[in-house]
Amino acid sequence: MTDQGWRPPGNGDPRLAHLLAAMIGDSNDPACIGSRIDRANRTAIARVLAARPMLIDVALHAREIWPEMGRTLWHAGPPIAWQEMCGPMQGSAVGALLYEGWARDPEAALRLLASGAVELEPCHHHRAVGPMSGIISPSMPVFVVRNEDRGNLAYTNFNEGIGKVLRFGANDASVIRRLNWIEKVLAPSLKAALARIEGGVPLKTIQAQALLMGDEVHSRNTAASLLFFKAIAVPLIKSGTARRRAGESLSFIADTPQFFLNLSMAASKATMDAGHGVSESSMVTAIARNGVNVGIRLSALDERWFEAPAEVPAGLFFPGYRQEDANLDLGDSAIAETAGFGGFSFAASPALVQLVGGTPAMATAYSSAMYGITLARDPSLALPALDFAGAPVGIDIRKVLDSGVRPVVTTGIAHKLAGIGQIGAGVVRVPLGCFTAAAYALAARLGIEGNGVAAS
Amino acid sequence: MTDQGWRPPGNGDPRLAHLLAAMIGDSNDPACIGSRIDRANRTAIARVLAARPMLIDVALHAREIWPEMGRTLWHAGPPIAWQEMCGPMQGSAVGALLYEGWARDPEAALRLLASGAVELEPCHHHRAVGPMSGIISPSMPVFVVRNEDRGNLAYTNFNEGIGKVLRFGANDASVIRRLNWIEKVLAPSLKAALARIEGGVPLKTIQAQALLMGDEVHSRNTAASLLFFKAIAVPLIKSGTARRRAGESLSFIADTPQFFLNLSMAASKATMDAGHGVSESSMVTAIARNGVNVGIRLSALDERWFEAPAEVPAGLFFPGYRQEDANLDLGDSAIAETAGFGGFSFAASPALVQLVGGTPAMATAYSSAMYGITLARDPSLALPALDFAGAPVGIDIRKVLDSGVRPVVTTGIAHKLAGIGQIGAGVVRVPLGCFTAAAYALAARLGIEGNGVAAS
Repeated sequence: MTDQGWRPPGNGDPRLAHLLAAMIGDSNDPACIGSRIDRANRTAIARVLAARPMLIDVALHAREIWPEMGRTLWHAGPPIAWQEMCGPMQGSAVGALLYEGWARDPEAALRLLASGAVELEPCHHHRAVGPMSGIISPSMPVFVVRNEDRGNLAYTNFNEGIGKVLRFGANDASVIRRLNWIEKVLAPSLKAALARIEGGVPLKTIQAQALLMGDEVHSRNTAASLLFFKAIAVPLIKSGTARRRAGESLSFIADTPQFFLNLSMAASKATMDAGHGVSESSMVTAIARNGVNVGIRLSALDERWFEAPAEVPAGLFFPGYRQEDANLDLGDSAIAETAGFGGFSFAASPALVQLVGGTPAMATAYSSAMYGITLARDPSLALPALDFAGAPVGIDIRKVLDSGVRPVVTTGIAHKLAGIGQIGAGVVRVPLGCFTAAAYALAARLGIEGNGVAAS
Repeated sequence: MTDQGWRPPGNGDPRLAHLLAAMIGDSNDPACIGSRIDRANRTAIARVLAARPMLIDVALHAREIWPEMGRTLWHAGPPIAWQEMCGPMQGSAVGALLYEGWARDPEAALRLLASGAVELEPCHHHRAVGPMSGIISPSMPVFVVRNEDRGNLAYTNFNEGIGKVLRFGANDASVIRRLNWIEKVLAPSLKAALARIEGGVPLKTIQAQALLMGDEVHSRNTAASLLFFKAIAVPLIKSGTARRRAGESLSFIADTPQFFLNLSMAASKATMDAGHGVSESSMVTAIARNGVNVGIRLSALDERWFEAPAEVPAGLFFPGYRQEDANLDLGDSAIAETAGFGGFSFAASPALVQLVGGTPAMATAYSSAMYGITLARDPSLALPALDFAGAPVGIDIRKVLDSGVRPVVTTGIAHKLAGIGQIGAGVVRVPLGCFTAAAYALAARLGIEGNGVAAS
């Protein structure tokens, strides 16, 4: 990075420029702050590359994982008050109350939520991730992922398919019925199958294979879902699960090409949590959106969020919908990009441009650009269109601010009103403001003064 | 084609040059021979593009399809006498006799085969195709494929997995045991599953999806086999097949990434047979190799073969083997190229270069070159790396001879000795001599004299 010399960051903030220069430093001076950050980043990225996320179990109800949950819901993105939440997240919360039986109708649910009797906290505060509104309620089943390298756990909910689904803000009777079926039939079936798989299902292996098969394992999981289907089918048959329940469960996964999305997210969460908590590291360990703001976390900066207003994804819309109907960027799924998938591995997925727009050349260009803002190429994640180069992994906020290149995220698009659902898919960038805020905080933590010189 | 003017074909045969000039003709003269061939080719390729090959059944034993089979075996490629056959084909035939119980040991099998008491005929003479040595014996189960557009049927045997398998010339006890298991367990399971799938499994749909997922559905069928696994798993569970047999069957398919190869071949056979028998058409309807010679068939020229000596594939070898161990090009699987897959769709499968050598750019270049020798782009077969252009389909012998560009085939490589098996995978070209021979025969059929003028 220092080879190219320092250039003023895009937003032309002179104080930030000073701080950034100090944080980049001189790679020939091992005592400088930049070199200290480099060393911390090497530790952080090594833990990320060594992660081996395995799907080891299904908890039949979230409350088994989080006994303290009570009448709380988990939601996507950084913290946000009920009144500030976007339409689809409010719609999802209403649906969760109906599913839990805490309210008899949407109006009663809205009253309960507005009263504060039911509270909402970020999934990320509980080692969990959920796509789109990311609502997890106490009765929902939860996948349990373990990083075999360091033993840390991560959790996610079940994918409900596409269209009118809770995660996109829909909450009618069909949505609640499906959630009940997932709880009563699918989750016990998969739990029984997983009990027969020694060591669990190797999620990163599936992610890596899927990159060779046209997925970027965020917005396209067609191959990954098939690989998961293959991994689970025979153990399920042998598990003694009743033929009808086994058949229903496999049919649902077979018909849900995004089934693996949640598992890809939990694998990414377990992977990035492994790199979290390294003192002085400028590596991003989470990107999450609540539909109003985007928040990022930094390895060195504990559980803090660095936020900026979310943007509207640009993409292709289902018939009858258009850009003006789109909600702001939403969901924990950008944890996939944090771990090198999605927009970062877009080169692996030319077929995805059929869903989000653009050309295969553009998809490859997105991945290529991400090498400029990341710490490593993951040799286990080969991108065929880039001659099998490893996927770009580990966003360094210094590189983002130095280059002005923002992380690119492939994403579903929700209708901005509650109760409607998915209306398209596209591409969005992470706001520069998140990185600016994180840089100021990291500089403060490192004791760098406004003139770019360390205080002591 | 005429836009570029005529150039002498690579082999510099002046008589062939005259014949070719007449067969290319002048597209502005609708009465000329070239225009008549163009019209015939439009009919032939339209039937190819309209084909809808469906897997509709499993015949539990080949003799149910061909009651006249008696003690005959089908083999890959054009006809060849026992004494002339290559090592792996002889090894496969020996294995088939052991499997059928016609001989107690390999020596007895060799005696029977040498005596002519067991005869061998090409698969293609019976609407069948088989990969590598392509041996089909009366007790083997056979897949039944029907082209719903024209009603024609095609057949193929079951894929045995990789390594030491009959089709590559191995014939030890493990090979025979697996063949028995395929006959007794796998085939009845799949027959029961297929009976529950209304209309059968749409093979071209699977081929098209797999092209978006890194397969060229000849030498790489990883995604296609998963898609087939998905199509068959739930019907199999619901079929009432015993849990153990269903589990074993699905495990075998799950562990056999080339399981779909044979189905891709039968789909291609059903597709190209639909375009066969169009008077005056210069379209190739089959490419097949018996390990000594390569033969092609022409739509206009009945059941005749036009042959030339086979070449040795170039590629990558499994540890311990090298180029000198390789048998000449072998198998009916080049029917896939005839239908636009394999080498023709290589652009879809950058991951395949990991198996056969080369680079993704080379894979794309192979596909691009094939547009120069084919009649159409199949809009239902999108190649992502070429901005979703349709795969090149329908080889025109005139274009091959005019350009000197030979069809490229992706292929497995057998050891040249009987009893060993697969030793690698690579790429090979179809010899120009096949096209020269076919051109002379077509010219004769069309009554063109040696000076390039029609006789009357």
